[in-house]
Amino acid sequence: MEKTIAVLPGDGIGPEVTSAAVKVLKLIARRYNHSFKLSYGLIGGAAIDALGNPFPEETADACQASDAVLLGAVGGPKWDANASGNRPENGLLAIRKHFGLFANLRPVKAVPALLGASPLKEEKASDVDLMIVRELTGGLYFGEPKHRTHEAAVDTLSYSREEIERIVDKAFELARVRRGKVTSVDKANVLETSRLWREVVEEKKAAYPDVRVEHQLVDSCAMKLITDPAAFDVVVTENMFGDILSDEASVITGSLGMLPSASIRSDGFGLYEPVHGSGPDIAGKGIANPAAAILSAAMMLRYSFGMDTEAAAIEEAVQTVLEDGFRTADVAEEGTRALSTEEWTERILEQ
Amino acid sequence: MEKTIAVLPGDGIGPEVTSAAVKVLKLIARRYNHSFKLSYGLIGGAAIDALGNPFPEETADACQASDAVLLGAVGGPKWDANASGNRPENGLLAIRKHFGLFANLRPVKAVPALLGASPLKEEKASDVDLMIVRELTGGLYFGEPKHRTHEAAVDTLSYSREEIERIVDKAFELARVRRGKVTSVDKANVLETSRLWREVVEEKKAAYPDVRVEHQLVDSCAMKLITDPAAFDVVVTENMFGDILSDEASVITGSLGMLPSASIRSDGFGLYEPVHGSGPDIAGKGIANPAAAILSAAMMLRYSFGMDTEAAAIEEAVQTVLEDGFRTADVAEEGTRALSTEEWTERILEQ
Ligand SMILES: CC(C)[C@H](C(=O)O)[C@@H](O)C(=O)O
Ligand SMILES: CC(C)[C@H](C(=O)O)[C@@H](O)C(=O)O
Repeated sequence: MEKTIAVLPGDGIGPEVTSAAVKVLKLIARRYNHSFKLSYGLIGGAAIDALGNPFPEETADACQASDAVLLGAVGGPKWDANASGNRPENGLLAIRKHFGLFANLRPVKAVPALLGASPLKEEKASDVDLMIVRELTGGLYFGEPKHRTHEAAVDTLSYSREEIERIVDKAFELARVRRGKVTSVDKANVLETSRLWREVVEEKKAAYPDVRVEHQLVDSCAMKLITDPAAFDVVVTENMFGDILSDEASVITGSLGMLPSASIRSDGFGLYEPVHGSGPDIAGKGIANPAAAILSAAMMLRYSFGMDTEAAAIEEAVQTVLEDGFRTADVAEEGTRALSTEEWTERILEQ
Repeated sequence: MEKTIAVLPGDGIGPEVTSAAVKVLKLIARRYNHSFKLSYGLIGGAAIDALGNPFPEETADACQASDAVLLGAVGGPKWDANASGNRPENGLLAIRKHFGLFANLRPVKAVPALLGASPLKEEKASDVDLMIVRELTGGLYFGEPKHRTHEAAVDTLSYSREEIERIVDKAFELARVRRGKVTSVDKANVLETSRLWREVVEEKKAAYPDVRVEHQLVDSCAMKLITDPAAFDVVVTENMFGDILSDEASVITGSLGMLPSASIRSDGFGLYEPVHGSGPDIAGKGIANPAAAILSAAMMLRYSFGMDTEAAAIEEAVQTVLEDGFRTADVAEEGTRALSTEEWTERILEQ
C-alpha cells in the first residue's frame, strides 16, 4: 500500500523518539512492500518559535494531505510563561479539533518484564489489559460560554446525543475485538450530561448483544483502577473524566514510558503519539525511551491503515527486546542493560 | 462544654457505625466533663421511605438547632431506580448546600498495621499523610444552566472569586498546622475557572509566607497520587476534581474503611461522616467497621468544638486497638482477631 504520513516531532524528546519510530516504519515498509511517504511539520513550542503559532497553517495542510499523523511530544519550560492560547499544548487541542479526532484510545497493558516498576503490588498489576476510550473534541474543553472576569469564571460542559453516540459506538466496536466488556464512566448522580450519556449507552447496547456493559461513577472508577485494574477491558468516558482517568491508568503498570495513544475519527484518519510528555530534563541526551513512539506507530498501522500483521510484528519485537533484558535508562533494573535510544531502536529493528 | 449534635444514621450500615460513634462521644462527654445533647433525624433512603424526601424539613430543623451533624451513610439498591432528584444521595447534596458546607476535608493517613491491605507497594504507601480539601458547594454540581433534552445536555462549571478565596484560605490554614505545604490542583491549561483558581491561589499565598505552594494539573495529580502519594500534604481543589481525587486517594493506603470526613463552613458548624458507603451487602449483620464513623466523631470534636485533646484521645485509641491486632472482618488478617462492630467498639471504649 501507499500511504502518506505527516511527522510532527514537536519538542523536547519528541524528535528523538519520533526518529526511532520512523526507522521502524521504514523497515516495515521494506519488509511488507509498502510505500510510506513522510512529510515533516512543526507543532507545539517548535512551531511557536518558528512561526508564532503552536498549530500553524503549514502543519494543518501537511496533515490534511496525509493519511495519518505521527506526533512526538509538545511543551517545555521555555514556553510555560506564554499567554494561554499560545502554549505548546494549544497546538494539540487545535489539531484534535481541526480534524475532528473525537476518539482517543489509550491502551494500558502490563509488561511482565517491567512489573517491578509498578507502584502497585505485582499481583494487582500483572493482569492489566485495558483500553481507555476518551471523547476528545467535546465537553468542558470546548463548550461555550467559557470566559472569565476578575470576579468569576465559567466553563461549559455540553454534549450532543450525536457526539456521545459516535464515541460509544467506537467503544463497543473495540470491546468486540477485545474481551467483550465496556465500562461506561459518568457522574449520572450529579450531571445532566452524564444522564444523557448513560441513556445513549443503554440504547446502543442492544446493537452489540455480544458485549457486556456496566456503568460506573467516575469517583468509583478512580478507586477501582487502583484496587482492581485487571477487571477493566474497554473504559469509555467523556473528555475531562478521560483526561484524569487515562493518566491515572497510565501509571498503574509501571510502564508509563511505554504507552502509545491514538486519536482518531470515523474515516480512519488519525493522530498517533506517545502518552509521555516532552521530557525536557533528558531532551537531547539520546537516552529517551522510544517504545511509546514505536508502539504509537504500530497503532497507526492497525487503526489507520488496517495493517494488523505489521502492527503485531512491532508489538512483539518490543516485548521480546524487553524480555531479553534490553532497556533504556528509565526502565533499567539490575541485571538489564541500559541502552541509548538509538541502540535500543537497533534491537527492535533486528527483531 | 454543652453541645447539641444532630445524629443522622441514614441507610445500610449507617445506623450500626453511627451507634458506635455515639457510644464513643458519650464516653468522651463523661470523661472530659462535657454535655452532648443528641437529636436524631432521618436522611437519605430512610427519609425517602418515611417522608418521601431525602432531606426533609424536620431534619433540616434538627440540624439547624445543633452545633454539628454526625451522619452515617446514605444509599442502597432499594432506591437505585428512583427518579434523579429523589435518590438518597440527593439528601447529601441538599444538606451540604442548605448549610453552605463549602469545605470538605478528607484526611488519608497510612495506618502501619493495615499496610498489607494497600494495593500499593508498602514502601509507596507507608509515609502517606495527606488531606484533600475539596470545594463542596460550587462548580459543576450546582452551576446553572443545567438541563437536558433528548438531543443534548449541558452542565455549568462556574466559580466566583469569593467561593475560591474561602476554600483556598481554609487549605492554607490547615497546611499551617500540618506540614506547611499546599498543592493546588486545577486544569489551568484548559479551563477558565482553573485560571481564576490559580490566580486566587497566587494572590493568597502572600498572606501565608510559612506555607509552600505548588500548582498541579489534575491529570498529573491523578498520577502522582499513585506514584508518590507521600509527597502530598494539603491538596486543595474544586468540587468535581475533589470528588475524583479524594476517592482515588482513599484507596492508596488500604484503609478505606477507616477514613473520616468533615464538611464545614467558616463558623465551625459542620457535618461529619465516614468516607465509605452504606455497605448494603453487610448491613444489619453487626460486622461493619465503625472506625471511620468514630474518627469522624473525632474530627467533629476537633473542627466544630475545638476539643483537640479529646479528638486525639479517640485517634490514639483507634491506632492502639488496631496495633494490638483487634480488627473488624473487612481489615482482618492472619494473626489478628475479627470482632463484631460492638466488640471492636468495646475495645475502643476501654482504651
Ligand atoms: C496538554 C493537555 C491540554 C492535554 C489534555 O488535557 O487533553 C493532555 O493532558 C492530554 O491528555 O493529551
Ligand atoms: C453521592 C455523591 C453525590 C457524592 C458526591 O459526588 O459529592 C459522593 O460521591 C461524595 O463524594 O460525597
